[in-house]
Amino acid sequence: MSHFLLRLYRKYAGGDRAFQRMETPGYRTGSFDGLHHPSDDDDDDLVDIAGATLDFSSTDDVPPLSSGGYEEYSSSSSSRAAGMNGNGPTKLVDPLEDPVPGLGTYEDFNTIDWVREKSKDRDRHREITKKSRQSTVALLRSVSDAFSGWLLMLLVGLMSGALAGGIDIAAHWLTDMKDGVCLIGFWFNHEHCCWTSNETTFQERDRCPQWQSWGELITGTSEGAFAYIVSYLMYIFWALLFSFLAVTLVRAFAPYACGSGIPEIKTILSGFIIRGYLGKWTLIIKTITLVLAVSSGLSLGKEGPLVHVACCCANILCHLFTKYRKNEAKRREVLSAAAAVGVSVAFGAPIGGVLFSLEEVSYYFPLKTLWRSFFAALVAAFTLRSINPFGNSRLVLFYVEFHAPWHLVELAPFILLGIFGGLWGALFIKANIAWCRRRKSTRLGHYPVMEVLVVAAFTALLAYPNSYTRMSGAELISELFNDCSLLDSSQLCGYKQPANISETSVGNSLADRPAGPGLYTALWQLALALIFKMMITVITFGMKVPSGLFIPSMAVGAIAGRLLGVGMEQLAYYNRDWVIFKGWCSPGADCITPGLYAMVGAAACLGGVTRMTVSLVVIMFELTGGLEYIVPLMAATMTSKWVADAFGREGIYEAHIRLNGYPFLEPKEEFEHSSLAVDVMRPRRSDPALAVLTQEGMTVGEVETLVESTHYSGFPVVVSQESQRLVGFVLRRDLLISIDNARKRQEGVVSASQVIFTEHTPAQAPDAPTPLRLRGIMDLSPFTVTDHTPMDITVDIFRKLGLRQCLVTHNGRLLGIITKKDILKHMAQMANRDPDSILFN
Amino acid sequence: MSHFLLRLYRKYAGGDRAFQRMETPGYRTGSFDGLHHPSDDDDDDLVDIAGATLDFSSTDDVPPLSSGGYEEYSSSSSSRAAGMNGNGPTKLVDPLEDPVPGLGTYEDFNTIDWVREKSKDRDRHREITKKSRQSTVALLRSVSDAFSGWLLMLLVGLMSGALAGGIDIAAHWLTDMKDGVCLIGFWFNHEHCCWTSNETTFQERDRCPQWQSWGELITGTSEGAFAYIVSYLMYIFWALLFSFLAVTLVRAFAPYACGSGIPEIKTILSGFIIRGYLGKWTLIIKTITLVLAVSSGLSLGKEGPLVHVACCCANILCHLFTKYRKNEAKRREVLSAAAAVGVSVAFGAPIGGVLFSLEEVSYYFPLKTLWRSFFAALVAAFTLRSINPFGNSRLVLFYVEFHAPWHLVELAPFILLGIFGGLWGALFIKANIAWCRRRKSTRLGHYPVMEVLVVAAFTALLAYPNSYTRMSGAELISELFNDCSLLDSSQLCGYKQPANISETSVGNSLADRPAGPGLYTALWQLALALIFKMMITVITFGMKVPSGLFIPSMAVGAIAGRLLGVGMEQLAYYNRDWVIFKGWCSPGADCITPGLYAMVGAAACLGGVTRMTVSLVVIMFELTGGLEYIVPLMAATMTSKWVADAFGREGIYEAHIRLNGYPFLEPKEEFEHSSLAVDVMRPRRSDPALAVLTQEGMTVGEVETLVESTHYSGFPVVVSQESQRLVGFVLRRDLLISIDNARKRQEGVVSASQVIFTEHTPAQAPDAPTPLRLRGIMDLSPFTVTDHTPMDITVDIFRKLGLRQCLVTHNGRLLGIITKKDILKHMAQMANRDPDSILFN
Repeated sequence: MSHFLLRLYRKYAGGDRAFQRMETPGYRTGSFDGLHHPSDDDDDDLVDIAGATLDFSSTDDVPPLSSGGYEEYSSSSSSRAAGMNGNGPTKLVDPLEDPVPGLGTYEDFNTIDWVREKSKDRDRHREITKKSRQSTVALLRSVSDAFSGWLLMLLVGLMSGALAGGIDIAAHWLTDMKDGVCLIGFWFNHEHCCWTSNETTFQERDRCPQWQSWGELITGTSEGAFAYIVSYLMYIFWALLFSFLAVTLVRAFAPYACGSGIPEIKTILSGFIIRGYLGKWTLIIKTITLVLAVSSGLSLGKEGPLVHVACCCANILCHLFTKYRKNEAKRREVLSAAAAVGVSVAFGAPIGGVLFSLEEVSYYFPLKTLWRSFFAALVAAFTLRSINPFGNSRLVLFYVEFHAPWHLVELAPFILLGIFGGLWGALFIKANIAWCRRRKSTRLGHYPVMEVLVVAAFTALLAYPNSYTRMSGAELISELFNDCSLLDSSQLCGYKQPANISETSVGNSLADRPAGPGLYTALWQLALALIFKMMITVITFGMKVPSGLFIPSMAVGAIAGRLLGVGMEQLAYYNRDWVIFKGWCSPGADCITPGLYAMVGAAACLGGVTRMTVSLVVIMFELTGGLEYIVPLMAATMTSKWVADAFGREGIYEAHIRLNGYPFLEPKEEFEHSSLAVDVMRPRRSDPALAVLTQEGMTVGEVETLVESTHYSGFPVVVSQESQRLVGFVLRRDLLISIDNARKRQEGVVSASQVIFTEHTPAQAPDAPTPLRLRGIMDLSPFTVTDHTPMDITVDIFRKLGLRQCLVTHNGRLLGIITKKDILKHMAQMANRDPDSILFN
Repeated sequence: MSHFLLRLYRKYAGGDRAFQRMETPGYRTGSFDGLHHPSDDDDDDLVDIAGATLDFSSTDDVPPLSSGGYEEYSSSSSSRAAGMNGNGPTKLVDPLEDPVPGLGTYEDFNTIDWVREKSKDRDRHREITKKSRQSTVALLRSVSDAFSGWLLMLLVGLMSGALAGGIDIAAHWLTDMKDGVCLIGFWFNHEHCCWTSNETTFQERDRCPQWQSWGELITGTSEGAFAYIVSYLMYIFWALLFSFLAVTLVRAFAPYACGSGIPEIKTILSGFIIRGYLGKWTLIIKTITLVLAVSSGLSLGKEGPLVHVACCCANILCHLFTKYRKNEAKRREVLSAAAAVGVSVAFGAPIGGVLFSLEEVSYYFPLKTLWRSFFAALVAAFTLRSINPFGNSRLVLFYVEFHAPWHLVELAPFILLGIFGGLWGALFIKANIAWCRRRKSTRLGHYPVMEVLVVAAFTALLAYPNSYTRMSGAELISELFNDCSLLDSSQLCGYKQPANISETSVGNSLADRPAGPGLYTALWQLALALIFKMMITVITFGMKVPSGLFIPSMAVGAIAGRLLGVGMEQLAYYNRDWVIFKGWCSPGADCITPGLYAMVGAAACLGGVTRMTVSLVVIMFELTGGLEYIVPLMAATMTSKWVADAFGREGIYEAHIRLNGYPFLEPKEEFEHSSLAVDVMRPRRSDPALAVLTQEGMTVGEVETLVESTHYSGFPVVVSQESQRLVGFVLRRDLLISIDNARKRQEGVVSASQVIFTEHTPAQAPDAPTPLRLRGIMDLSPFTVTDHTPMDITVDIFRKLGLRQCLVTHNGRLLGIITKKDILKHMAQMANRDPDSILFN
């Protein structure tokens, strides 16, 4: 127990540091800090990383290998190296076991080499296949290896589905807690509390005696100004309490749990390493604080964070299987599937989730992953359905049931909604990014708890008087999507009942009717809610609590859509003889469905903010289950994307990625400029020549001096300084680890020893010290392009192959090097942005 | 008119030749034949190609440039070349206009270079963007260019939807024609004919007096053996007539119209060029013969050919837009979308179609294409719906309407169906490939018309007596998917009516009932139909008529599923007390839905044959419109794929691609072996050295001799023979065209002229002839890998970048070359197959 408390304390102390580190724009990227124990579980524990950051951040470029952990390493490195030279030159280590810890792994905040990772996995697979022919045990292991992917998917689906169900139930309960309490058990939510009430009619089920609002409970009466004020204050109190708990927990235990997580997951999937971002502490804290944040009434949703939660589950479960634990590329395949799972449970849309992962989140999405993520998404959806968090065997609150037809003329208002959505999306992104940049650069960012409390208080204060902002975002959307039937008691259905329609004519109940005073009040409230939501969402997204953007965006769009829908309905009711309504809007017919407008508006606004297209339409299609509304949805989404793209091509996630300086190479955008590789590569014309190693002739001391005097993460190996003909490429990390190892374990290796990258040891003076053979750690197949290669092709190569760096040659001579960061800097420069905004390697 | 007839004649004469050419395994691939007029519309006209093939096929390696067509080429090639050296060294030509015809184009049966094509398109785009800042007209052109993709998609959707509707209606009519004729107008089909009949009841609508079977019409009575025999003979007559027409039209006018087309489209999408395969003649003939083939009663479907038809539409419509006409890569994006359109209209499943294109057909599928193909698929589906070919506003005949729940225990029979589907799939592929190989290698292949007629006669003879084989495949599936209601008069619903259920208890109408004699007869007929369908499909698929595989495969599965379903139903009825049925199969409850079993079986068999996964499940999901049945479908599809994969990893389309020797690099399969680039590259150790050009010092005559003495499609350019340092790569075709052009148009260029690839002209003797500067046609950024690169990485690079060839270097020196064909040959060798089965480049 005390050990646990100690860990918590360390986490608190270290976590805060990591928190700020992600925030500080001046973070030194070239430094060699943070090299810690390369242990298997380094990915799920933030405290170690944070600690390591504290320890090493001041000691740049000193290989921090003194911490031990190399006990397994035997002294037979030279024989191993010789053996490796024979068969597989690029295999740094035996694929099935890994005796030199650290070789072939990555540091925090670095980019992985996809080609190397995938090649490692293929080597592993080949080894297993070869062995499987030898014995039955090995055969069984090979079969279990083949099925481990499916098992992992099953587990991810089950765990994410269960967590999503738990989050839904808890958030529902806490949200109702702001209103009042259930007398027969405080753990019941409003609806659940009133289920047991058998005396109420359908109409009065909402007001069963077992459920008492705070005002009623404290003042004894549900009427009057005093009760209202008490309820108001209690609402604000709970909102503040929940948000305070949320932000404190995030700050204390898992700083990575804040935000929606999708920008970071996109970056991680593109090959970046952020240790601890998908760890178990992040999972625990994000799950708890997500419930709190949603319940606090802040203008945020749970959809984005659910993707993060699902990815955390996947990452943690990956540790159960060697195949996925040890391979960064394979693990990312699982994470892609987990992103699909997250959306699947958020919207009850498995196909939409898979397409979301494919379209929006994933970087490398092979077809195998498509099939597996579909499986995982389905498992999660069915797990969630059997938990049944909403008590109606639906997966989401806002399932849509109407099937009224729409008319071609209505495409005009739908496109109008698309324009609104696009404008709102572009505006939101600009405003939110400006606000977040302000938070990063001014003193505002130093008081995250205070910021959350102020925003929560402000939100609660303004939200309570208006019933449409008081209810949660999901409930609001559900109400707006809903079509009015005669039985509906909601204010939005406050139509005047035509006198000539008798109670029995249920068939006509959906016909268009004139608006009554109830509806007009509702419209005013909705208009105010629209303005409020638009403002508050801008400053809410990006605060230090888990916050998704889907629900607020959809709410804005749904309000706008409903307003337009009711407007159209009344217009059609009073002007049936207009040419545009003639023929399809006859009296007594149900020609306009305001709920459909709300749905289209929601899709348009979400599309404007995230720039999703197919996945958005498919998610909406799965909500309604019919092909009827795909055309309106598509028209609105398409318009929205075009309008928003006219103001800036980035969606909110890309904008946040850029804001944080992550090294993300957008796979969707084309490189538009006509520069050549020679314009982008280092060294520049005025710079000193490229730091290279020669394949023989350099001593250990010279190599160490070269490494220490530079900060490059890798060095090309050439035949000789004069010819500059390329032999291979050595990573800085591997070089340092190997030299250090050899100095410790291998006899006779001193500073004067020759470092040899060739296959055969050259003749040496008899008294020369033992040479250090390092061909084993050299990548014999570095990627090269010629200096004349257009940058569009180079960028394409980087994207498609997932490269980290690429060497540049001219007529067969090594000329320079291009890294992913160089490309991103070049692209920033071309777009007139600050190239130093790219922070990480 | 006479011109048209002449063209038809030439087409007949030439078409037949091209027909055989595709068939002959010994087709010489290295030859330089078939270089014809590089005109804009060379892709849609088979006759020219066929003619060119005839003319040039005997004159190997002689540059056939004498046919003119270079009038536009001005004599300023040297100034152009100089200008090009300045700015964009890899831009062979100005992207917006193309003054040297032939430069940068491809020959028939060759692979395109994706990188070059995409780079060309980016250059074009950059040019347009640059110009758009200068004038309003250019701005408008840039906008129209940006929207041309969408317009094209709209057109493709409209045209494909309309054609699909026409095919459906015509096939429906001709199929009914085999049965009888409508007396009030022969152009009405059976259903349509009886619509006007207002005297019949619901039961007798099938037998309205306006519609007369042939037996009835000729003998005057609908009863008796004579009428039956007359009908039988008429059925065979029509079947023979339709199939004869189909095969003759295919042979005469468009040999490429045969088969399903999906293997070829997959190959084309991967970057292969088959001129005329998607041309207008293929479209016309395929549309007509598809109707005939489907109507003839052969065991084939229209789904695969519909994909081909949609791709033809797309290819033809591409000619309207310069952007797509001139760029092979861009055109393939459109073709990918068209494949989605084809499936969308075949199954009324737009999302499934897009996923089919993504999963099964496409090679390069950027996200932009995803969104556009979704749009096109929707447009096509709505066009088809407004044509309403089935008269019920459904897109397909076998829409499923039941929503009965299924029980977990039923997963066992579903998995059993999956195993059946997998076994059948594996068996079918093996048998069909063996049969097709036999057709290719024996005299059987010389009588395609006879073969079709024999099979058609055989099919008709055996199919007529059994009502389940007499009806068309789609109708059969529709009947098998259908769930029995009390009103159903079909034999499959021949249950015994329990005596104690009165007519009014409609609510119980679906309860499980004991099978009556009608059902038993139906089961026997179905079992016979199953065996018949399984046999006949093997020999039908691959004949010289348009033939899809979806419907026959689904029919086999649906029969098997229905049989199992009825079996389960009866088992449950008679053994309600068994432990597995207890609790959910109480008397009077509808616990087993045989239609669902048929659906699952259809999915399993289709999955076994094609190895589709996600797309198959989504297509089936769109047929039912509910998430309920996804789990059964998924279980069956997954089992089916695993079982079938155990017998061989190739689906039917891959097997046919391999059978035909197309250069297709399967994107799904991993390269499993540990060979290195040096093992695969040419020249081999024993071969003569690589044929290279030097950047200066060679004369035109020497170059021509080198080119003529080899058959390589490209030559590396090196600094000098001694250093072997790589400068660039020149394509044979470009080289020949340029030299020929220069000899004709440029003064002073003779055989003794120096060929110069450097930037600056080296000093020459004053009396030397004018040098020929060819830097403009040299690719300055050829792809290179080192000799130590593992082949799995090399294959990955080829796949992801879509390379045609790659140069191999060792320590900066050029060593050899690897082409796509070399890789495919190596893979064939590794799999113990004949490496010479890869025919094309």
